[in-house]
Amino acid sequence: MPHPNDPKLRSFIPVDPASDFPIQNLPYGVFSTKDGLAPRVGVAIGDYVLDLWQLVQDCRIDVVEPAVFAAAMLNPFMALGPTVWSRTRARISELLRADHSELRDNPKLRQRALVPMADVKLHMPIAVAGYTDFYSSKEHATNVGVMFRGKDNALQPNWLHMPIGYNGRASTVVVSGTKVRRPRGQLKPPGAELPSFGPCKRLDFELEIGVVIGQPSAMGEMLPERQAEEMIFGFVILNDWSARDIQQWEYVPLGPFQAKAFATSISPWIVTREALEPFRRHGPEQDPPPLPYLRQAQPNNYDMKLDVGLRAAQMNEAQTICRTNFKYMYWSSVQQLVHHASSGCAMNVGDLLGSGTISGPEKHQRGSLLEISWNGTESVELPRGIKRTFLEDGDSLVMRGWCQGDGFRVGFGEVEGTIMPAE
Amino acid sequence: MPHPNDPKLRSFIPVDPASDFPIQNLPYGVFSTKDGLAPRVGVAIGDYVLDLWQLVQDCRIDVVEPAVFAAAMLNPFMALGPTVWSRTRARISELLRADHSELRDNPKLRQRALVPMADVKLHMPIAVAGYTDFYSSKEHATNVGVMFRGKDNALQPNWLHMPIGYNGRASTVVVSGTKVRRPRGQLKPPGAELPSFGPCKRLDFELEIGVVIGQPSAMGEMLPERQAEEMIFGFVILNDWSARDIQQWEYVPLGPFQAKAFATSISPWIVTREALEPFRRHGPEQDPPPLPYLRQAQPNNYDMKLDVGLRAAQMNEAQTICRTNFKYMYWSSVQQLVHHASSGCAMNVGDLLGSGTISGPEKHQRGSLLEISWNGTESVELPRGIKRTFLEDGDSLVMRGWCQGDGFRVGFGEVEGTIMPAE
Repeated sequence: MPHPNDPKLRSFIPVDPASDFPIQNLPYGVFSTKDGLAPRVGVAIGDYVLDLWQLVQDCRIDVVEPAVFAAAMLNPFMALGPTVWSRTRARISELLRADHSELRDNPKLRQRALVPMADVKLHMPIAVAGYTDFYSSKEHATNVGVMFRGKDNALQPNWLHMPIGYNGRASTVVVSGTKVRRPRGQLKPPGAELPSFGPCKRLDFELEIGVVIGQPSAMGEMLPERQAEEMIFGFVILNDWSARDIQQWEYVPLGPFQAKAFATSISPWIVTREALEPFRRHGPEQDPPPLPYLRQAQPNNYDMKLDVGLRAAQMNEAQTICRTNFKYMYWSSVQQLVHHASSGCAMNVGDLLGSGTISGPEKHQRGSLLEISWNGTESVELPRGIKRTFLEDGDSLVMRGWCQGDGFRVGFGEVEGTIMPAE
Repeated sequence: MPHPNDPKLRSFIPVDPASDFPIQNLPYGVFSTKDGLAPRVGVAIGDYVLDLWQLVQDCRIDVVEPAVFAAAMLNPFMALGPTVWSRTRARISELLRADHSELRDNPKLRQRALVPMADVKLHMPIAVAGYTDFYSSKEHATNVGVMFRGKDNALQPNWLHMPIGYNGRASTVVVSGTKVRRPRGQLKPPGAELPSFGPCKRLDFELEIGVVIGQPSAMGEMLPERQAEEMIFGFVILNDWSARDIQQWEYVPLGPFQAKAFATSISPWIVTREALEPFRRHGPEQDPPPLPYLRQAQPNNYDMKLDVGLRAAQMNEAQTICRTNFKYMYWSSVQQLVHHASSGCAMNVGDLLGSGTISGPEKHQRGSLLEISWNGTESVELPRGIKRTFLEDGDSLVMRGWCQGDGFRVGFGEVEGTIMPAE
């Protein structure tokens, strides 16, 4: 049986070469349709969603407990572990192959199990157990450091020694398409004597990749590289919405709190770690070399293209304001997870780890408006004379990401969010 | 019917005046016994646990869906809301009253429903949805500030304007009695050129009260004082174990992460907000006056005595090293919750909000070893010539808290944790 990542595989479902969802991808999500059935687990293939609950009911997938695909979240499936993930993906790949007749030649089952993407509503794919946000792009940390502390002290002394991160708020992680209300909070602009309370005036996005943890680790347990990697079920695109003015006033000394607590958007599709395997790359050289517990024996970065589009309410389509790549990240997702557990912190199925804003070495590769507008001093020029330093009400922000194969791409679809006024 | 807080109420169960669990308290917990039944919900009364599942099966409590007491956590009961909490407590109080015959004169039911405390195992009372930790004692923040920044800059500029807090790690909140493994982490003591990785050398406790949130709020919604208060189900004692050396090196700029992620211990009993009603007090005057969204129309502090005992492995009993009071807190739990939701952050049933270390104005009222030993410069003298600046392996730390009524006390029992070596 060919490996599901084989670039020569073709599905009997027609898939455009520019689609994010060829047979080499098979990302998992949670969807519902107008048929009135509860949200359940599906896999994206071309312009269709494959309804896994229909397949298990028809005894076409016997590698899992059937109920995991009737759940409104992927957590029960993830809990079954990497061997089951891999066998299930192989079986789904087989069922979708152009040279495999089982589903291809069963019109009744195709009718039930293949739902046009246009007819489904996509839901949060996981119940987020804990949400952690890292800060692992050297270019991003340097840009922020130069802005606020000057060139000579841009990176904090600890930054090159560990993946710096903080615990975020899991209760407001939402799926792409969820409208985001402009947060209110305490603001104390430079020169103001006292803080005031009101709508955020410096609303920003942060382009990130989210790691979805699919296996737990015990309290008190450290993770070797291999175990950490095998706990990773897959990846989503993540927009870590940020209120820069709230953050500036609140963050000393305990870090970001309300400035990041109002919303975090993720893509509805989780691209599996296995599907990204062909796109592994070494990350940037780490100098000084990391402490032994953080050393990597294998390449843990990915060559993944990412872009960000901004569409003001008056515009017909989004204009790209950032094109970058996940490969630039200084600290890998595996290193983040190893560090996260290093104190004895237990990890849970459904934990979500944000990579931190993904910026690259070039100016067009900056993953936040804070950097793009250089702290509000340089406007982004959009069509019709529209300018932006930070996000305005009605703005829609769209992030996309994909790995380019030979004649196909393995992608996430998009994560979109539109800003609603504070009230 | 007398109010369950009536100080004249007596139970047919004998309760010592020094017990934390008179009929005026009725705290909720989750327990199991050697009978092999699954963990379920109970209420503490004197030296007994009242098995609520037995009572609903016998149709003695009809104010709730019976299954909520068969759960291994209080979340389903809490989700029913404050009216049900209040009616349930009133009914339990009635059943336990000395002048009410229903349970008193039913030996068979008493036999089934009243389990000696000595025979039960107490479990985590809630599934923690999110864990947030505040920093709301002015005395504590000032002590820490004086130590690290000097007297003139002790309080950060934002501290008097909002309850500063950060998101903690929910996955390692454990119940009293759970052993705590000394965490490992990156350490960079003063003078060291590079960080190293190893066991924490400055392991500390923090005496806190935890607020248990029993009702949700919607994303994007702000909370008025009254609504915030009614979302509070009850309170626990909380030990926010802290690795001071890990914290010192990691916390700039995103706040505490691994230094606080390895363990947080809570008492098994949740004292309800209603039971604490007679002990409400105004907090310290807030100057400058808080911004309008943080103003309080009512007293939201509590007169609650707290103490901390330390027992080294060679000692027979713990020696008290701190005696303080929850009433000193500058920011109240209600203000913390209002601020937490102010950006639009959704709150969930099972959220846990740590008050922050509770210190008082006097030296014997300091709620952490960092303050008691003044950053390791003054030893605590224990019996047998034992001295401590920070916690050593084998040390056991015990926290207690109670409100003193007229002839009875409304308390939490204890939260205990013993330090195991790093490996």
